[in-house]
Amino acid sequence: MDERAALRLLAADLPGAGDDAAVVDDLVVTTDMLHETTDFPAGTTRYTAGWRAVGASLSDVAAMGASATCAVAAYAAVELDETELGDFVRGARDVCEAVGAEYVGGDLDTHQEFTTATTAIGRTDDPVRRSGAAPGDLLCVTGELGRSAAAVRLFEADETDRANDLFRFTPRVAAGVALRGSATAMMDSSDGLARSVHQLAEASDCGFELDFDALPVHDAVAEAATDSADRRDLAAFFGEDFELVFTLPESALDAAREATDVPLTVVGNAVEESESAEAVVADGEVVPDRGYTHGGDE
Amino acid sequence: MDERAALRLLAADLPGAGDDAAVVDDLVVTTDMLHETTDFPAGTTRYTAGWRAVGASLSDVAAMGASATCAVAAYAAVELDETELGDFVRGARDVCEAVGAEYVGGDLDTHQEFTTATTAIGRTDDPVRRSGAAPGDLLCVTGELGRSAAAVRLFEADETDRANDLFRFTPRVAAGVALRGSATAMMDSSDGLARSVHQLAEASDCGFELDFDALPVHDAVAEAATDSADRRDLAAFFGEDFELVFTLPESALDAAREATDVPLTVVGNAVEESESAEAVVADGEVVPDRGYTHGGDE
Repeated sequence: MDERAALRLLAADLPGAGDDAAVVDDLVVTTDMLHETTDFPAGTTRYTAGWRAVGASLSDVAAMGASATCAVAAYAAVELDETELGDFVRGARDVCEAVGAEYVGGDLDTHQEFTTATTAIGRTDDPVRRSGAAPGDLLCVTGELGRSAAAVRLFEADETDRANDLFRFTPRVAAGVALRGSATAMMDSSDGLARSVHQLAEASDCGFELDFDALPVHDAVAEAATDSADRRDLAAFFGEDFELVFTLPESALDAAREATDVPLTVVGNAVEESESAEAVVADGEVVPDRGYTHGGDE
Repeated sequence: MDERAALRLLAADLPGAGDDAAVVDDLVVTTDMLHETTDFPAGTTRYTAGWRAVGASLSDVAAMGASATCAVAAYAAVELDETELGDFVRGARDVCEAVGAEYVGGDLDTHQEFTTATTAIGRTDDPVRRSGAAPGDLLCVTGELGRSAAAVRLFEADETDRANDLFRFTPRVAAGVALRGSATAMMDSSDGLARSVHQLAEASDCGFELDFDALPVHDAVAEAATDSADRRDLAAFFGEDFELVFTLPESALDAAREATDVPLTVVGNAVEESESAEAVVADGEVVPDRGYTHGGDE
């Protein structure tokens, strides 16, 4: 059973599951576990790891349109080294500070490999779900895609300073809050843009037409990519980018752009669900439901 | 650096640290990471593991005198087996239900060994800290001590059914809420009674006189213990019991007992801090600050 199958199994059982974060009263809650071997390329500093791990959970809070209240992290390593732990905590605290949340500590443990589990809590009375997109809505993304993909290539090339910089993203909490009045469906792009759009299609019972040429691609991708096909792959399928992918009525776009400093790019639009066609198409071609799966099946 | 030293380092940096759970606005938040090799003896079912892991976090919520709102768990295993995962989730959900909380899911991952990180969230406008004990206050515990110690011995003896039953404790959320008006200091006994009392002494700047003969010891301990010294060791030092250890004025004891169905036992009293004496004594002898340390140093 891969991770997505397991998640579907859980979702069938748990009313709170199926969005980026669970909703309980006015709270949104989300948790993630990351491991050195699967989530942090060689060269990732503990400062970056703390920032990124807690940032990933804060991104899920952002995807619900919630303000970020606080985060905690459980930290396990082979040895509890004071410098490494201190660096991790600084990273965790700094990413919280960047989005107005409080980092309030966690648990410590020794373990065979560096492992961290982070939980973030946010507040909203009106969470944005994945299920509200309607045919005619515009499909948009915040910021730029491919940042993490480029970072992974840079880690491979031992350009660790630049790679670490790219790995420390700012969770889109402010943009999420600005969009909560207008976004009809929203999630983050942690599994890659293509997979995210498939998930919005499934949750909203609609299809999407995607315009690959419109994708806002991070500058670092051009340098990291081997050719134009690779460039598209890194931007649309690699994932781990933590941008917001959302839909809104065309009439709301200008006001949304005014409400946030983060660039919003239209990358497609929602269409009627069709029995005969695939849910997500671009230039008349099917966009595969392919992206980052933590279970390791791709 | 062992876990306690590392936790002290963290506590110096983080205003929220130092109690059983962090306090943010009206929320209390706590997280724990547990591993198969260190926290779940051979024979522990995944149902028990889910119950116990989430229960440990709910116990920290209880120790703040907060009501329990919800819990999440990150679950990692070598393979994502549907039955094991389903059992874990049932256990997690059942322990939440037992204390009026909602289990709202989590994250899944593959990993070298079964590992889970649980987070629980509670609510209170007036959390009970570890720091409010005053000389003259009574020292009390809920329920009975030694339950988990006996369970570990039973796991060793392959009596896994009884051991699993003992391992599934009910977090003392209801008792914690009932005590929040009267308890002056409170924590849970997860590190063992002796260590908990030392921690209350340190946080409250007082000493304690402990009456070992008064300890409420679980029936299963008598059976598991090799002699009376071992019996005391299992009850007072082994830990992992998740009872509440708290102080309150003698005048508040009767009302506290009426407010909860859980037995409250007086096991000592708070005394003036003394420069010359150790913080915790029993029958004129020093009680060592010894107990369960997850870093593996004892």
